Amino acid sequence: MALVDHHVHGATSHDLSRTAFEELISESDRPVPAWMTRFDSQLGYAILRHCAPVLGLEEHCTPEEYLARRARLGAAETNRLLLTASGVGHFLVETGHRGDELLGPSGMAEAAGVPADEIVRLESVAERVAAGGCEAGAFAGRFAEALWERARTARGLKTIAAYRYGLDFDPAPPTREEVTEAAGHWLSAGGGRLTDPVLLRHLIWTGLECGLPLQFHIGYGDPDLDLRRSDPLLLRGLVERAEPTGVPLLLLHCYPYQRHAGFLAQAYPNVFFDVGLAVTHTGARSVAVVAESLEVAPFAKILFSSDAFGPAELHHLGALLWRRAMARVLGGFVAEGEWSVAQAMRVATMVGSANARRVYGLGTPAGPFE
Amino acid sequence: MALVDHHVHGATSHDLSRTAFEELISESDRPVPAWMTRFDSQLGYAILRHCAPVLGLEEHCTPEEYLARRARLGAAETNRLLLTASGVGHFLVETGHRGDELLGPSGMAEAAGVPADEIVRLESVAERVAAGGCEAGAFAGRFAEALWERARTARGLKTIAAYRYGLDFDPAPPTREEVTEAAGHWLSAGGGRLTDPVLLRHLIWTGLECGLPLQFHIGYGDPDLDLRRSDPLLLRGLVERAEPTGVPLLLLHCYPYQRHAGFLAQAYPNVFFDVGLAVTHTGARSVAVVAESLEVAPFAKILFSSDAFGPAELHHLGALLWRRAMARVLGGFVAEGEWSVAQAMRVATMVGSANARRVYGLGTPAGPFE
Amino acid sequence: MALVDHHVHGATSHDLSRTAFEELISESDRPVPAWMTRFDSQLGYAILRHCAPVLGLEEHCTPEEYLARRARLGAAETNRLLLTASGVGHFLVETGHRGDELLGPSGMAEAAGVPADEIVRLESVAERVAAGGCEAGAFAGRFAEALWERARTARGLKTIAAYRYGLDFDPAPPTREEVTEAAGHWLSAGGGRLTDPVLLRHLIWTGLECGLPLQFHIGYGDPDLDLRRSDPLLLRGLVERAEPTGVPLLLLHCYPYQRHAGFLAQAYPNVFFDVGLAVTHTGARSVAVVAESLEVAPFAKILFSSDAFGPAELHHLGALLWRRAMARVLGGFVAEGEWSVAQAMRVATMVGSANARRVYGLGTPAGPFE
Repeated sequence: MALVDHHVHGATSHDLSRTAFEELISESDRPVPAWMTRFDSQLGYAILRHCAPVLGLEEHCTPEEYLARRARLGAAETNRLLLTASGVGHFLVETGHRGDELLGPSGMAEAAGVPADEIVRLESVAERVAAGGCEAGAFAGRFAEALWERARTARGLKTIAAYRYGLDFDPAPPTREEVTEAAGHWLSAGGGRLTDPVLLRHLIWTGLECGLPLQFHIGYGDPDLDLRRSDPLLLRGLVERAEPTGVPLLLLHCYPYQRHAGFLAQAYPNVFFDVGLAVTHTGARSVAVVAESLEVAPFAKILFSSDAFGPAELHHLGALLWRRAMARVLGGFVAEGEWSVAQAMRVATMVGSANARRVYGLGTPAGPFE
Repeated sequence: MALVDHHVHGATSHDLSRTAFEELISESDRPVPAWMTRFDSQLGYAILRHCAPVLGLEEHCTPEEYLARRARLGAAETNRLLLTASGVGHFLVETGHRGDELLGPSGMAEAAGVPADEIVRLESVAERVAAGGCEAGAFAGRFAEALWERARTARGLKTIAAYRYGLDFDPAPPTREEVTEAAGHWLSAGGGRLTDPVLLRHLIWTGLECGLPLQFHIGYGDPDLDLRRSDPLLLRGLVERAEPTGVPLLLLHCYPYQRHAGFLAQAYPNVFFDVGLAVTHTGARSVAVVAESLEVAPFAKILFSSDAFGPAELHHLGALLWRRAMARVLGGFVAEGEWSVAQAMRVATMVGSANARRVYGLGTPAGPFE
Repeated sequence: MALVDHHVHGATSHDLSRTAFEELISESDRPVPAWMTRFDSQLGYAILRHCAPVLGLEEHCTPEEYLARRARLGAAETNRLLLTASGVGHFLVETGHRGDELLGPSGMAEAAGVPADEIVRLESVAERVAAGGCEAGAFAGRFAEALWERARTARGLKTIAAYRYGLDFDPAPPTREEVTEAAGHWLSAGGGRLTDPVLLRHLIWTGLECGLPLQFHIGYGDPDLDLRRSDPLLLRGLVERAEPTGVPLLLLHCYPYQRHAGFLAQAYPNVFFDVGLAVTHTGARSVAVVAESLEVAPFAKILFSSDAFGPAELHHLGALLWRRAMARVLGGFVAEGEWSVAQAMRVATMVGSANARRVYGLGTPAGPFE
């Protein structure tokens, strides 16, 4: 079964020093302290276990051996090896974050040999409008125009309001006057990183008008984020107000609030979720995280993503660890006599690809791989 | 061992269409989207696995086969088969929610062939007082009178303040003046669904005066509820203020906050809890939920309930999945050499029936079954 | 491998009645209800399973047999047997709580035959300054002087702001004027139990100036504590403000928020954590708690502690259950082919002793035991 990775960033197109590599295998944006290495982590050990053989090394090799082989192969060949072995049949690439350092959708499609489409980050579109010069009163119109233009070819939208403010924002759409006033403050201060909650809400509501599936960063991420204010339960008001639009809301990652996300996915027809990033970063423990995602949510509401960013190890492990976790969890249900084999296969297919194909309108798989 | 199901609703007394059945096997109150079936869920798979054989079908049959057999047997025979096979020896039936569609305590006793007593919902008593016509100044007295009358034959009381407001209410009892004022607003608006936090607090404090064990809906439930505001830790102030009354406070369901409930049950002598509803709805994963309930709470403070409502499949699975989970969790402790077999038997008996018999004063079991 | 127990209290130096013993094997400060025994708990069963053989009894003996043997041996011999069999090679003893009833660092060193150093509780130092008589304007200076004096021989400091106020305090250091004003209120009311958030913040910031590692009580504890307000995520502001000081912040226990603590330990170089107290109190379930602590945090950021207080059973079980849990969790990773044996040994050594030796500057182990 070829997976649909419904939320991923590009692979790094250039070679990485050890420092750069270690910085990219953690969500921390701080330098690595001299007294530790980030290879001493679940993700580090998963790289040495699962990616080393793909690069022709022994399992559980040393970090030095691994990085030396990686450097010798070069970024392009490393990417090709890890991406083609990932078993992903379709990538939905979010392009809004440091996109100039990473492969875009076409680069990903080329390196992996499978289709790749785009997910557009709302905040990046708005910041580009501001960077292009814009009057406060014209902002709403210019943003809508820019978004609809981008949305013509995109498969979905994404908001990182969790990073920029928190999910405890007023769920109601702001008025036109509020938007103009907030845009005035932001633009007169030079634009840049958008953190105003009025504008963030405006972006979300404009995104909802587009009709494309809307992804939300939830839970686990870098220290920019107050994890307390990224609990998906904070979105209840927005979920209820957005319900009549019929737009699918996709809660990404959700760790450690995966049970909260499962509750919302059961309660509301417009809520979907995944445990994306948390699978890669919990390595040998990802089985437990995936298991907790399979409790109260209907299986038609759960998706797979890797949220990989940078080293193609993350793309590879996102898919590999998810497959491994699903095999162990669903295989366990079968071994205990609780599920049939057919039910386990059905749910693996739904979560791994069919749900994403339906939500994003990707059509039925074409190639032998999908 | 015959269980005491200390919090349950009646079984549906009439036949159910597929739509009606699917609506009742989820806590969501929304229509089922056309692109999914609620049989694709842990609860759905548990029905096909465990209830199908009780109705004479193969394990893991299709939803169509299951519903056809169910329709052929009819509601009364389906109820009889599933209830008598549940191994429950005593039901405490909460009658406050859509009671006209469901079997009452006597109907349950008849269908299951075991005793059934009543749990009275505070909010329903108050709403009936309002429906009967009442002056604001007379409300407190009329409510107390109605409650004491109902309490004469009931085993316990229940509040759904979590649904009607949230658990973050002021823990102090309101003054008589506050109650009269709030009752005035409510009654002059026609009564109906009671959501005023002053009145909800008043109901709870009047309930505490009754002296009967008091159940609280906590955590997991339908979308009416803000899961964030149903964390049992929010009850700390009330628990401490209620401690001198000696009234047992029983926290129901608690998912995903079962560890929070366990903390309260360890800390405060008047707190008890169960993982009720969450066992049924997590199906093959209920083992993990039950395991998390067996951490810091003393074993004398944990109870069993199903919170089943409607299809007798829920009554059957509540008991069956709980037994299965306890057997696997406690059996695991024994297999690992941590507990003796006698300890495992003792704890299963405490949680499954003895604790409830002590708290509700049910006496020692009489029949061969208990 | 000899463990470093980086946060522990002394063992009780006197004999204990059954009532006194049961009161000390729970975090509840309430009397034990007549209808239960605290031996019916995970901790109680772990005592009967693991401590009984150390005292020469059969595994799973009765509480009566256990307590009779304990009484016959006497406190000193019981302590010696349980402490020397714990496999702890170095104790860091927090002396600020009921220290007169317990062995101090030298008593612990003598009973266990290994080194023991001191951790100083900030609030106790401040309360002693107040008890000695102090003007409001002189408080800050007198406290700093007393703290630096104590810190000369201590290995670390500790704050129990979680108990005294909650972790939702203003993270900024208070001004000198604010401190003087708050000290005035406190001292004029006779000093005693310090709960003023301005003074608690002042103690923490003065502690940070000392440069010694600073421990925080987090999560699980006695009913004095509002568990909701002891979520480690509430410390985000303080963690970020303290980052430039380079002082290690050690989050203790953290249950049930161990995943929140793991997130902070990944995000911030100055954050470390353990699951201390929760290991002992969850007994057979401690495997699950330890497993959840090994998810997103780098392994260089996780420590071991028992937080034992009183009966030496707690010291013994803290170490024994942690070893057992690590063996099962890491052994599971190896058995599943995810980790190498060398990686498992490395992580057990890091978490069990090496990380604490580095953070507290304990040097490399000297004896054959370490």
